[in-house]
Amino acid sequence: MSLLVEKTSSGREYKVKDMSQADFGRLEIELAEVEMPGLMACRAEFGPAKPFKGAKITGSLHMTIQTAVLIETLTALGAEVRWCSCNIFSTQDHAAAAIARDSAAVFAWKGETLQEYWWCTERALDWGPGGGPDLIVDDGGDTTLLIHEGVKAEEIYEKSGQFPDPSSTDNAEFQIVLTIIRDGLKTDPKRYHKMKERLVGVSEETTTGVKRLYQMQANGSLLFPAINVNDSVTKSKFDNLYGCRHSLPDGLMRATDVMIAGKVSVVCGYGDVGKGCAAALKQAGSRVIVTEIDPICALQALMEGFQVLTLEDVVSQADIFVTTTGNKDIIMLSHMKKMKNNAIVCNIGHFDNEIDMHGLETYPGVKRITIKPQTDRWVFPDTKTGIIVLAEGRLMNLGCATGHPSFVMSCSFTNQVIAQLELWKEKGTGKYEKKVYVLPKHLDEKVAALHLGKLGANLTKLTKDQADYISVPVEGPYKPAHYRY
Amino acid sequence: MSLLVEKTSSGREYKVKDMSQADFGRLEIELAEVEMPGLMACRAEFGPAKPFKGAKITGSLHMTIQTAVLIETLTALGAEVRWCSCNIFSTQDHAAAAIARDSAAVFAWKGETLQEYWWCTERALDWGPGGGPDLIVDDGGDTTLLIHEGVKAEEIYEKSGQFPDPSSTDNAEFQIVLTIIRDGLKTDPKRYHKMKERLVGVSEETTTGVKRLYQMQANGSLLFPAINVNDSVTKSKFDNLYGCRHSLPDGLMRATDVMIAGKVSVVCGYGDVGKGCAAALKQAGSRVIVTEIDPICALQALMEGFQVLTLEDVVSQADIFVTTTGNKDIIMLSHMKKMKNNAIVCNIGHFDNEIDMHGLETYPGVKRITIKPQTDRWVFPDTKTGIIVLAEGRLMNLGCATGHPSFVMSCSFTNQVIAQLELWKEKGTGKYEKKVYVLPKHLDEKVAALHLGKLGANLTKLTKDQADYISVPVEGPYKPAHYRY
Amino acid sequence: MSLLVEKTSSGREYKVKDMSQADFGRLEIELAEVEMPGLMACRAEFGPAKPFKGAKITGSLHMTIQTAVLIETLTALGAEVRWCSCNIFSTQDHAAAAIARDSAAVFAWKGETLQEYWWCTERALDWGPGGGPDLIVDDGGDTTLLIHEGVKAEEIYEKSGQFPDPSSTDNAEFQIVLTIIRDGLKTDPKRYHKMKERLVGVSEETTTGVKRLYQMQANGSLLFPAINVNDSVTKSKFDNLYGCRHSLPDGLMRATDVMIAGKVSVVCGYGDVGKGCAAALKQAGSRVIVTEIDPICALQALMEGFQVLTLEDVVSQADIFVTTTGNKDIIMLSHMKKMKNNAIVCNIGHFDNEIDMHGLETYPGVKRITIKPQTDRWVFPDTKTGIIVLAEGRLMNLGCATGHPSFVMSCSFTNQVIAQLELWKEKGTGKYEKKVYVLPKHLDEKVAALHLGKLGANLTKLTKDQADYISVPVEGPYKPAHYRY
Amino acid sequence: MSLLVEKTSSGREYKVKDMSQADFGRLEIELAEVEMPGLMACRAEFGPAKPFKGAKITGSLHMTIQTAVLIETLTALGAEVRWCSCNIFSTQDHAAAAIARDSAAVFAWKGETLQEYWWCTERALDWGPGGGPDLIVDDGGDTTLLIHEGVKAEEIYEKSGQFPDPSSTDNAEFQIVLTIIRDGLKTDPKRYHKMKERLVGVSEETTTGVKRLYQMQANGSLLFPAINVNDSVTKSKFDNLYGCRHSLPDGLMRATDVMIAGKVSVVCGYGDVGKGCAAALKQAGSRVIVTEIDPICALQALMEGFQVLTLEDVVSQADIFVTTTGNKDIIMLSHMKKMKNNAIVCNIGHFDNEIDMHGLETYPGVKRITIKPQTDRWVFPDTKTGIIVLAEGRLMNLGCATGHPSFVMSCSFTNQVIAQLELWKEKGTGKYEKKVYVLPKHLDEKVAALHLGKLGANLTKLTKDQADYISVPVEGPYKPAHYRY
Repeated sequence: MSLLVEKTSSGREYKVKDMSQADFGRLEIELAEVEMPGLMACRAEFGPAKPFKGAKITGSLHMTIQTAVLIETLTALGAEVRWCSCNIFSTQDHAAAAIARDSAAVFAWKGETLQEYWWCTERALDWGPGGGPDLIVDDGGDTTLLIHEGVKAEEIYEKSGQFPDPSSTDNAEFQIVLTIIRDGLKTDPKRYHKMKERLVGVSEETTTGVKRLYQMQANGSLLFPAINVNDSVTKSKFDNLYGCRHSLPDGLMRATDVMIAGKVSVVCGYGDVGKGCAAALKQAGSRVIVTEIDPICALQALMEGFQVLTLEDVVSQADIFVTTTGNKDIIMLSHMKKMKNNAIVCNIGHFDNEIDMHGLETYPGVKRITIKPQTDRWVFPDTKTGIIVLAEGRLMNLGCATGHPSFVMSCSFTNQVIAQLELWKEKGTGKYEKKVYVLPKHLDEKVAALHLGKLGANLTKLTKDQADYISVPVEGPYKPAHYRY
Repeated sequence: MSLLVEKTSSGREYKVKDMSQADFGRLEIELAEVEMPGLMACRAEFGPAKPFKGAKITGSLHMTIQTAVLIETLTALGAEVRWCSCNIFSTQDHAAAAIARDSAAVFAWKGETLQEYWWCTERALDWGPGGGPDLIVDDGGDTTLLIHEGVKAEEIYEKSGQFPDPSSTDNAEFQIVLTIIRDGLKTDPKRYHKMKERLVGVSEETTTGVKRLYQMQANGSLLFPAINVNDSVTKSKFDNLYGCRHSLPDGLMRATDVMIAGKVSVVCGYGDVGKGCAAALKQAGSRVIVTEIDPICALQALMEGFQVLTLEDVVSQADIFVTTTGNKDIIMLSHMKKMKNNAIVCNIGHFDNEIDMHGLETYPGVKRITIKPQTDRWVFPDTKTGIIVLAEGRLMNLGCATGHPSFVMSCSFTNQVIAQLELWKEKGTGKYEKKVYVLPKHLDEKVAALHLGKLGANLTKLTKDQADYISVPVEGPYKPAHYRY
Repeated sequence: MSLLVEKTSSGREYKVKDMSQADFGRLEIELAEVEMPGLMACRAEFGPAKPFKGAKITGSLHMTIQTAVLIETLTALGAEVRWCSCNIFSTQDHAAAAIARDSAAVFAWKGETLQEYWWCTERALDWGPGGGPDLIVDDGGDTTLLIHEGVKAEEIYEKSGQFPDPSSTDNAEFQIVLTIIRDGLKTDPKRYHKMKERLVGVSEETTTGVKRLYQMQANGSLLFPAINVNDSVTKSKFDNLYGCRHSLPDGLMRATDVMIAGKVSVVCGYGDVGKGCAAALKQAGSRVIVTEIDPICALQALMEGFQVLTLEDVVSQADIFVTTTGNKDIIMLSHMKKMKNNAIVCNIGHFDNEIDMHGLETYPGVKRITIKPQTDRWVFPDTKTGIIVLAEGRLMNLGCATGHPSFVMSCSFTNQVIAQLELWKEKGTGKYEKKVYVLPKHLDEKVAALHLGKLGANLTKLTKDQADYISVPVEGPYKPAHYRY
Repeated sequence: MSLLVEKTSSGREYKVKDMSQADFGRLEIELAEVEMPGLMACRAEFGPAKPFKGAKITGSLHMTIQTAVLIETLTALGAEVRWCSCNIFSTQDHAAAAIARDSAAVFAWKGETLQEYWWCTERALDWGPGGGPDLIVDDGGDTTLLIHEGVKAEEIYEKSGQFPDPSSTDNAEFQIVLTIIRDGLKTDPKRYHKMKERLVGVSEETTTGVKRLYQMQANGSLLFPAINVNDSVTKSKFDNLYGCRHSLPDGLMRATDVMIAGKVSVVCGYGDVGKGCAAALKQAGSRVIVTEIDPICALQALMEGFQVLTLEDVVSQADIFVTTTGNKDIIMLSHMKKMKNNAIVCNIGHFDNEIDMHGLETYPGVKRITIKPQTDRWVFPDTKTGIIVLAEGRLMNLGCATGHPSFVMSCSFTNQVIAQLELWKEKGTGKYEKKVYVLPKHLDEKVAALHLGKLGANLTKLTKDQADYISVPVEGPYKPAHYRY
């Protein structure tokens, strides 16, 4: 795509694939609203007061139909919004079109190059001379990273006049980041400093991003307050678990139409995401083998009847491989070379470094046959057998299907709205320091409560006497902080 | 589409949507071959001898990737093939293109009108002046029906000179059938008689078609031998059950992206298809309610933890409705009007008369909003609430997704190949009368055996002593005819 | 026990372990009645007319609480009953006591020797000089066998004056049978002939007994009509499947308290019983491996996610072994010697020849440590490791627990009552020849229907129009004979 | 039982039901040792050094076979042990006999009265003039309670000369506690003060006891350090969840033999215990309805396909009721009166106040029919229908079956051993204040690791590079404290 910003008739910027899909996007957004009771309840409760009045929010989070409902909840509460996706394959183009046309500045399309990806990120952060954003919704932490790296580079530049040098790193993606920062520096040597100053805080969506934040907190480099949305119970124990239980088979089916029943599957990692994936595969009739480093998670897998082995033990016998670890270098070229013909290899963890795509792509003589977008067969020259890699090693549920369904994303995104409201409400009060926070349990319980009616549930009410007996307030919260659910 | 037959460079006729998709189809056919060990084993075992040499086979069966592998197995065994789909939405256009280009005369595309559908059927039956077909592969029995109705009309015409009168029926589809026959009669008053004379037999794929055949056998009107492939164990207890367990959620996800977990689902009918659907929904976290007329199937549902109620009991509380009965008039307009907003209504039974589409379409003031092809929201004028109907009430797994996966279809289609071989081998021997037959158990067991290796199974072998003890041959068959599996 | 028949105050014969348990038995019988709606419905429907008036019924079927409700249904319908158990460990002594005291002549206790077992069988058949029985309820066919062997011996004796020679066989149990017949011959050389003449028929409960009956039918040696109750759908697809799914873990838990989760289990055979066992173990968190000879059943196992291997493949890795085959020589001494320390070995098939108990018992130096009745640890002298064998290789669910629960046995036993009624009603009409029959489908459906109300089910009713469309009567039966459920 | 302490030949005190069961107990203990790799690993690792040399340990924890292996692990590490059960029905008499004979002073039998229960507790605490205990293993906190109440009474007595007055409370059980303390005061007015002074700390096993400890910590009344074993992941997420998944159906089956399939079950509470119970009932084919007060747990239940309703909504339709809440007054008399005939009511929470037994027992005209010990049918005079109450409302898995299986208890008890070792090692160091502590994560992971080998698992090892990437040590711990598993 040519990287030229377009404008709506009202003058709002955007860059999407096909504006003609906006009507289709709108129809699906309307369906999703019915499935997202938490977000709709936020609109009902907070919408009239417009609490986000004056707030400029930048979001970097898969530009899907569900995210569209999140964005329009933020705007319904008064915010002005700019958005990009946090994954090159995860945008649903009709969702992007509808939002770009109707609600917010969107820079996202399915199938971005890495260059385009970071261009979009930078566009979403660019609020023009007036400055901004005030708040960030981040997923995986790329936006947060850009600002931190930007500030770092500006400091070096200020001290030494040195520009960042993209050739200083082997990492192709980081080269792009440095290039963007370098080019920005030339225009405005205080760009990221201004951003940092203005920024009230970030709410982070996922395990990987949260991990980065805690690392920055630990080494004292975190530049603004952060709310860890991922570790709300109603996020990590729902979206990560039940979302993946839904979207892993969805991605497999759309990409390959493979019969899961009877197959041998390997799930690398048995955290929340791995638990959801293993459950889905088992239920579809697959025999599932789990790999784990953590003995507790391994023992959980065993209690559910899964075999726990190493990848080396099973690499030549399995049909389907899924990485869910949040770590790197899980399935390497050496593994892939030992796999059965047409073994399926995919990743549902946030980043694409779980599978050694670089090793695969650069293997001498390897042949890539694109069956359809995001479904490639890679044939090894020695054996003439191939493996099928989904979404180029990136999040397969978003690359090959449409990600998690609306209902479970409503839980996650209601946490996002609450986190953003909290940050904005407390701006200037000093309540939040440059640290990482989780939402208090009563808000977590509230998110859950907003989703019960849609499913026809009747909650039991504690009597005062019962509440006293277990030492909790009648209206909750009901559990100690360490409770694991 | 304009109903003009096209021709390949080699002169073979076809009519498909987009010939440029042939390469894509070929790639997916090659993937499917790896998943269809039964068909590939047939090619290896029988291919060299070309047992179908001289045989002209007409097929009327969903023109999917899996069917493509079936067709190319028939041609690999020496047959000449013409093909149409047995459902207006079930064709995969890339599969049709690849076969049309490479292997057989195909008349099929996704989204046919009924008019087009019967035109395709008639094309597939038309082998030109040399006559044909010798054999039919039927699914649902429409081709068989056309020949029987044609013969009937020709007899009346011969006796009375009367043409069939399309206006004699209310049924829109049957009007088309009569029109086709009438027009044919004008050209050749013995057309279907000649077909019947030449025809060696039909092998029928599905419950619905088999039911029709047994009815014809019972009333003495069956015109040629038929092999009931559906009731091979390796068909009805696999394709119907495990196929639907896979493809029902696939269809739901592709059409609606709805979260199945937490939802209330109603499965109408608890036969093999219903069992597969109920299992899939339960495993995805839905609460499933079954409706049944048969107390035995109802008791089976209860033993699996499903509630058994009538549709009236639950119509206003459920989120997802699936018909699997093979019967008609299951979900009527009166039901649909009572459903929750955005309740999903779909059918996975063979014919589209399980859901009262006519009642819905003709309800005064009803508004149809097409979200995307095969996903419509119908809004009632009184309540302004809508329901979501998939694939216009037709087979949702084929209309909204890609049908059953290759592996399980390999079981079904290997039965088809064996049935066709058997009919062709015994042509002229009188072994098969104008009756309905099932394949002998040793062939059923053979089909299963051909699929074990792919899944890494090791079968135990009976000793002679053990075989004698249970009075079976060492090499099988191992079960009495009445065994239910 | 001393083998002396005792008598109640009313003069009815019996031999049970402890008459003081009769009150306890009565309480549990009353609970069971609430769980056995089919039998209670039979009492309500048929009781007043006393259709069994004059009928003498001998039963040989596990003398449990559930069987007690069956017996009292037969007596409520007018029959006179004598009963023994068909397994040396399956009697529940409190059930036997209650029935002996209140309703019928019982000869059964938990822990019979084989000698005692056959003595009981013979007592149950001995109706004194007036002759009898008129009808037999058999389970596994031992009573039927005794009569057939008796008749055979009498014929030889009549022709040649020769007595049967127990030493002519190696089989210890068959030696006992021949001894009983020999001793009987000395008293009355026409004893079994008279029995055969009077006998109206037998209804057989289980797969193993049915197999024997079909063998006799095939070779022309069957002496009286037989109804195959096992193959009623409401028997084999319920009792065998759901009964075992319940009682296998029950037996394992009561015998060993072993944690099933995380363990590797091997289920030998994947018929109805094996399916129930494998499902139960999987659900309890075990990893299950299936062994099969039949490729169709093997493919079913694979579709459910079970690995299919041979016993040899896994014998040294598994923790729990269950035989369900109905065949012999499944787990041999050579297997047992390779097992892990404290591997659990048990059988849930009808006969005790699935496990090579003889080989184990006679292995030089092997040591048997009885943990508690029906739970033995066998220690091999070479390795000092042991295996745990349940119920001495006999039906572990009845030996170590209480067998199948009442509700599912109500299905089976309602079939028994209906079969007995049918045989008795048609005595002298010639309807039933010396062949094996199954109950007609409408009765099978009736049995199911009688069990729906208890579980709160509402059945849907076909309209006449719908019934015509699928060519069935409105009131059923709803399926063709070959339907597999 | 007469409350006279007996002595072994070596002079060790005990009071058990039947010393002749010691051999049987020993055999089952030996079997359990094979299933408890964590405890056996502790013996191997720590046994030689006898780290508990000189330590006097009092335990109050279900005196089962598994606890026997725990006790003998403590003695193998050098401790001297006195033990009582923490529930009147949970003792396995053969386990008690074996331990009393071979290893420790045991005061416990199945079916204690409350009077006897507290006598046993007091015996277990009484180490004679030398004083003691040094350490307590508590389950539910009764021993801890007794000491705290004793100290409180002694303080009042010291100040005011007043004895505690049992008639000051309505609670029958607390009257017994006060009586014991009063009688003790008369003998030694500093008894509990001396105990408190000597006591190094307590390790508490279960949710209920932990709740009490946190309450005492909160109000400053806790008298000694406490380690919360319950909230080790390898305890609460294993024993509570997988233990109950095993032992709930075990208890139901042994107590009632009821068929679970097809029944409607209500599980009150969806914490770890409730999750295990609901999973077990679902897997056995029951339709499960959950009641919850906490919206998050309620939403989890919905995601698994369970209906969430109030008890009032379903009380008249369900067949089986299980309380798992840890709260009081869950199933009241008013509920029980509305239940179906022979509905089963049971509790698997720690205390017996979840079910209103007092209301039931004192209902005018109610009739109690004891089917067998721990299985009572209570008949209401008005309706003549009855409900079946298990274990008199106490822990049904221990009252009606044998509690959790060895393997999962090995996880729990290995935590206990580690906690006791930690307290003992740190006595006098001041590391532990009068607060509640959980074990550090690396010990939790160690417990899990000790249990993997038995189940054949192979753990994957992190590379240094990977460990750095996710910021954990190569050897663990692998998760942040807030991780929920």
